[in-house]
Parts: sequence; structure tokens; C-alpha cells
Amino acid sequence: MEVVESALADIAVRDRTLNCFTAVTADRARAEAAAVDAAVAAGRDPGPLAGVPVAAKNLFDIEGLTTLAGSKIERDKPAAARDTFVLRRLRAAGAVPVGALNMDEYAYGFTTENHHHGPTRNPHDPGRIAGGSSGGSAAAVAAGLVPLSLGSDTNGSIRVPASLCGVFGLKPTYGRLSRGGAYPFAASFDHVGPFARSAADLALAYDAAQGADPDDPAQQWREPAPASPLLDSGIGALRIAVADGHFARNGHGEAFAAVAAAARALGATARVEVPEAARGRAAAFLITMAEGGNLHLPDLRTRPDDFDPMTRDRFLAGALLPASWLLQAQRVRAAYRARVLPLFEEWDLLLTPATPYVAPRIGQDTVEVDGEAVPVRPNLGVYTQPISCIGLPAMSVPLVDPGAAGAPGGLPIGLQLVAAPWREDLLFRAARALERAGVAGSPTPPR
Amino acid sequence: MEVVESALADIAVRDRTLNCFTAVTADRARAEAAAVDAAVAAGRDPGPLAGVPVAAKNLFDIEGLTTLAGSKIERDKPAAARDTFVLRRLRAAGAVPVGALNMDEYAYGFTTENHHHGPTRNPHDPGRIAGGSSGGSAAAVAAGLVPLSLGSDTNGSIRVPASLCGVFGLKPTYGRLSRGGAYPFAASFDHVGPFARSAADLALAYDAAQGADPDDPAQQWREPAPASPLLDSGIGALRIAVADGHFARNGHGEAFAAVAAAARALGATARVEVPEAARGRAAAFLITMAEGGNLHLPDLRTRPDDFDPMTRDRFLAGALLPASWLLQAQRVRAAYRARVLPLFEEWDLLLTPATPYVAPRIGQDTVEVDGEAVPVRPNLGVYTQPISCIGLPAMSVPLVDPGAAGAPGGLPIGLQLVAAPWREDLLFRAARALERAGVAGSPTPPR
Repeated sequence: MEVVESALADIAVRDRTLNCFTAVTADRARAEAAAVDAAVAAGRDPGPLAGVPVAAKNLFDIEGLTTLAGSKIERDKPAAARDTFVLRRLRAAGAVPVGALNMDEYAYGFTTENHHHGPTRNPHDPGRIAGGSSGGSAAAVAAGLVPLSLGSDTNGSIRVPASLCGVFGLKPTYGRLSRGGAYPFAASFDHVGPFARSAADLALAYDAAQGADPDDPAQQWREPAPASPLLDSGIGALRIAVADGHFARNGHGEAFAAVAAAARALGATARVEVPEAARGRAAAFLITMAEGGNLHLPDLRTRPDDFDPMTRDRFLAGALLPASWLLQAQRVRAAYRARVLPLFEEWDLLLTPATPYVAPRIGQDTVEVDGEAVPVRPNLGVYTQPISCIGLPAMSVPLVDPGAAGAPGGLPIGLQLVAAPWREDLLFRAARALERAGVAGSPTPPR
Repeated sequence: MEVVESALADIAVRDRTLNCFTAVTADRARAEAAAVDAAVAAGRDPGPLAGVPVAAKNLFDIEGLTTLAGSKIERDKPAAARDTFVLRRLRAAGAVPVGALNMDEYAYGFTTENHHHGPTRNPHDPGRIAGGSSGGSAAAVAAGLVPLSLGSDTNGSIRVPASLCGVFGLKPTYGRLSRGGAYPFAASFDHVGPFARSAADLALAYDAAQGADPDDPAQQWREPAPASPLLDSGIGALRIAVADGHFARNGHGEAFAAVAAAARALGATARVEVPEAARGRAAAFLITMAEGGNLHLPDLRTRPDDFDPMTRDRFLAGALLPASWLLQAQRVRAAYRARVLPLFEEWDLLLTPATPYVAPRIGQDTVEVDGEAVPVRPNLGVYTQPISCIGLPAMSVPLVDPGAAGAPGGLPIGLQLVAAPWREDLLFRAARALERAGVAGSPTPPR
């Protein structure tokens, strides 16, 4: 109860600036925290997350709240009748939901500069973005408002804000965690996953969130593969390579320094080219816009002005895409996947940057990369999109001392660990090894 | 050698009327037949198809011939350097290729009224179509010009002409037989398969055609499942139902009489609804036109007048389809498949008509069905499209005495046997049982 009360008090004060939350469910949180206390008092096992405050991106159904998905259009919809599947799982492990978190409208963005709710601010510099689309989820954990949160990741929407806010974020294998009760975006890419400030906390949330759910037809349920017991099993025999080519270009020095620091700590000296990564990313762009545009077609036709201007044009472009472009993109995606998967016969883990640079300023449109001005927002996913579009599990791992890696202003930056499908355990083992080596960790923001 | 010479002589005379062949490879056939004879003389095993003349739809690569795929556009392309995979397999079993067969342009049609090569004529009535798109393949076998032929089936292009010409035609499970070396149409639906005048001959061709081929990435190679040894194992314990709903409407009396005759012979009394068959078919239409339009986009842009007018408008419509229609169709297709597959927990085989009526006249545009005039050509696939679009194996089985089933003019008509994925063996067992019961068989056309 004390933990929850303290979190609620902290949110009430500090979130005025940070703008992570779009709703705080204080009454419910107090009632559920009291129930956990009562269970403990009665000698019952309250679960591994007993009394831990958790918050969820507002595209997750939360009982009693209308699921906004960052939009104005959804505001008139009825409140959700029950929590989303993964939130129910976390509650079953004792966690206490405390509210809903800000995001890019309909998850279509990497910045959480939401037109309706205002931007979520980066706890390390409130003039900068938190990243997105799960910006509220990353910032709330980075600021210590909650120790755990839930987000979704279609092209990088967990890994990008995790990197920019300096927290751990997991995008599991496509099909691992149920999306039941989560508002979709581009169904063939949508994933859900947790944020935390340590590999151990992230593992607890991931372990708790697993479970079979008939409400997500894309789920390929496998027996729970708990990460927590494996955390300290080390990376002794793992074959780890640094991703070259696309992943060694397109970013600033701090991104590559993060990878280099991790590679040193993990003893990874090999470099490997991920074939056709740029083409895979282009396919992800097209399929995402087509699937998203199709999803929102009725509203695009009848009430386009109610969309966030940031997302409307992206959805419209997707709705107008010819079928032949989509088919070509689907073929490229399949061919790219077939090219990449054999890499994991030789390698257990790949290291890439998570984002190409530290958090841009709110409203910033362009950034210089490799001597050219590029659009800052889409480019944030340059390293995450080629991974998620073929469903590989990936984790964004923050540098504990980004300043030492040359990050401007000492702002957070993360690296991305990538494994073969269903091998989330390897991500956790490597993340933990990086913590123990003093490389990874969630830097504390100024207060 | 005699068999091949006799076939060549027969083709030379009778194909002037029937127009099944677009090329006859007489020199090659004689050389290969001589090689088979030499093998026999030398005491070597010439294979189960030793000296059997076979012909292939002209979308199959045949060494030394330009692969036309029914088009004028392909005429300028170089000759194929080697035979298509399944033809190589048949040759390895001793078969002797004798030529290439007429088809709808780029396989987009059910009639083989080819604008460039003229229509293939039905051996049972030369004023009528042979069906399509593998019309040449079905008519050549029905007329006895060759005992075996190869065709392709995207939405019914083997089963429709097999029904209209009165021969057996197999469309195997999607992914069973390699399409390597065959000109594509709509890749997510394309199948190849054999035609014959008996279940035993069809089984020999099917058995020979199997094999793993890296050139077809959609192939899901499984160990050969030879049908020949199982032919006479009967249908004792098989659970067989007649498809109701969509499959009990949309056709003429002779189509349903064919199904009823087979049901009686197989002791099948139950009727089962195939859920959402019409919606599945609509999805097949859209995805086919989009995939086909995408494939031919460069030629549609630069030389639309070189297309057959019959196919051009279909391809153009597909090329102009919005991505959102394609996505919806892909989702409907997946949902439909998920609805249909559980039927096979209860049933081993389904019986449906193969075509809604006997062969229409060449040039006929409409036909009356259920009191309404419907377009005769697309409606020919009304029963085949909902089966192939989810990859189920299916066989078109001819009534040996269609006149007794009320078929106008005693023209051929077939029924369609449908099984669960990878259960071609059940199709063969039931087809053989229908032959032995005197229901199925290839009626002899007038000469």
C-alpha cells in the first residue's frame, strides 16, 4: 500500500511536467493495493509482483477507462469492460495498475508529440521528446513514477523510447505475448512488451505476462519460457556479433559507442552484415501504412479532421497505396526474413544501436546524419524496424553512463540486442551480463 | 516408340480441329522414345511411365520452346533451357514429352478461348469450350491424343476443364508439387497437377511428379506420399459428406446429380455446410487479380494492346486495386481457412460439383442459373475457387455416363472430391472406388 501511495503522490506532483499519464486510476490502485496487503496478512502468496505499481500505454484496455489509443476519435467509446490480457496476467502476479500512459496517436509515431494530450517530456531533459510511440511508458519508468510499464512495438515503439529515456524495453518474438485487449495498429507487426529499470525487473514482468490467449489469433503459444531463473547464467558460450552495414551507418557517434561498449564487455569482436536491412525496412514502412490505413479507413473517410495531423497524413498515404505496392512489400519482407534467419545458425546474438541518436528536442524536424539533413521522426526507427518487421525478439538496453560514450549532454542512449525467434532468454542473459559489467543500467534523471 | 509415333500421328490429324497443341516436339519425342526403347533393350528399368506420351500446358518450361503462357508478349523471349521440374520428374519415370498445350492467356480464365491461338475445342462437341485455363491439357487427354498431361490450377484451372472434358484432374495440396519452371499467375494460389483418363493413370503421374525442389520457395516438401499403392484400399471407414449451402446452389441439375450419384456409391448421406464459401471465393477473386495485376504491371503500362482482351481488363482491374481491399481479402481468406479446416476433424472427404454446368458454347457470355442470367466464364469456378484459395487438395472426377445424370447432350460433367491438406491419398481411394462402382470414368468422345 505504501509503495502505491508513494507512486500516486509522485505522479500527482511530477507528472504535471512530464505528462506521462493520460489517466490515473487512484481509487482502483488503492483498493487493489489493500487487497494485496490483505492477502499477505492472511498468509497467502501475493505473487512475485506483489504491490508493484504498473501503468499501461493507453491503447491497452484498462477496466473502467475508455481505451484512447492516443486519439480524440476513441473518446466517445464506452469504457473497457476488463483489462487487457497482459495486464490481467501482471495483476495475477500481484501488480497494481495505477493508470494509462501517453502515446503517439494510434501508435503511429516515434516521438509521443501527441496533438490531443501534448508531448510526453523526457525525464532527462523536459525540452526533449521521450520517444514513441510508447513514450509515456518509457518516461514513467525512467522518472521512477512506476517501476514497470507496458507498451507496444510495431516498428520500434518500445525500443525507441526505451533508448531515449534510458530504460530497458523488451519487444518479444512476434506471437509470444498476447495482444488480446490491445488496440491494433498494423496487425502483422504489432507486439506488446514491458519496460523496467533493470534486467531483473524486466524479466519479472515478462515472465508474468506470458500465457495462452484465444483472443489473439496471431499468438503462437509456447510453454512459458521464464527469463528470471536464467538471468545470471552468463553468456559464456554465446556467439555474439556486431551488426554491420546498415546498422553501422545512419546514426551518430554515441549510438555506435553504445554498441562498442557492449561488444567489449561481451567479448564480441566479429562483425556481421544483416543482408537487405534497408529493403526490409522499406517494406515495413509500406505494409505498416497500408495495414494502418485500412484499419482507420472509415474514420479517414468521415472525420479526417479529428485525427492528429501527425498521423493523419501517414494513414491517408497508406489508405491510398496501390495493392501492387503492398504485394511487392510483402514479398520483400518474406524474402528478407528468409535471408536473415540463417544468420542465427552462426550467431546467438546480434548487437545494434537501438536509436541513431539521443532524444531530439520537442518539435525538432530534421537532424544531420552522415552529412545530410534527414527527417528526425521516421529516422528514429532506422535500427528497430528491420528487426521487428520479421518478428525477431529484441531488447533495448540503456548505457548506464551515456556521457562516457560521448552522448551529448549525457542524455540516455541504448543498444539493441537481437536474437533468433523464441530466444528471449538470450537477450536477458546478455542484458544482465552488461549490467554486471557496469555497462548497462538505467541512468537516474535529474529531479 | 510405336505409342509415341501413334500419338504424333493422331495429333497431326485430329488437333487441326481440337486445337489443343500450340507446339508439337516431334523430333525430341522420337529421340526420347528411342532412348526408352534402348533402355528396355539393354535390360534397364525404363520407369513406370516408360514411353508414355505426355504434354504440358504452355506455361511450363519445355526445353527448346519459348514458354508462352498463352500470350503474345512472351513470344520474343528465349527458349527455355530445361524442362519444368515436374516434367523432368515425369521424364525420369520414362514419360516422353510430345508438346505444349493451349490455355487462357497467363492462365487468367476458365475457357481457353485464347485470342492469339484460338479456342481449344471440346472433344465431346467442337462447338463448345474445353474449359480453362488448362483447356488444352484436358482436351488432349479427353480426345486420347495423349494419356497424360500437366496443367496448373490457381482458382480451378485443372478441375474446371477436367469436368467439362470428362477426365480426371488433380489439384494437390498447396505446396505439394513444385512449381519450379512454371510461369506464375497468382503465386499464393498457384498449383500444378496432372490430367488422366483413370484414377490409376492419374496416380502414376502424381507419384512421379513428387520431389523436393529449391526453385519453388512455397513448396513444403514432405516425403513422397505415393497414391498408386493405396488405390484399391477402399473407402471403408472414411467419413464422407456432401457439401451443402454454396455448393448446393449456383449450378444446374447435372452438377448436383453428379454429386448425388457419387454420394450414393460412397454411402455418403450426411450434408455439411462449408462456412463462408462465398466470402472465401470473393477473397480469392480480389487476391488473384491483385497478384496477377502486380505480376504484369510493367507490360500493362507499356504494351496493354498486346494482351488478350479477355485478360487485359482483369489484370488492369487488379493493378488498380487499393491496398486496403487486398488486405481485407487476405484477412477474409485467413479467417475462412480457419473456419473450414476444423471440418476435417469430423469428415475425411467432401463431395461438391466440379463445375456448375456442362461445357458452354464457344463465345457464350451468359447462362441462366437459379433463374438469373449470370456471366458464364467466372461462374465456372464457383465450386473450385473456394477450395483452392485455402490450398485444400481436390480432384475433379468425371461421370462415366453423364447423360444418365441428365447432362444436356450427354456432355461430360465432373464432381469434386476435397480432402484435408496433404491427404491426396483419400482423393485417389475415393476416385478409384467410384470407378469400380461404375459411377466415375472418362467418357469416350465421338470421333
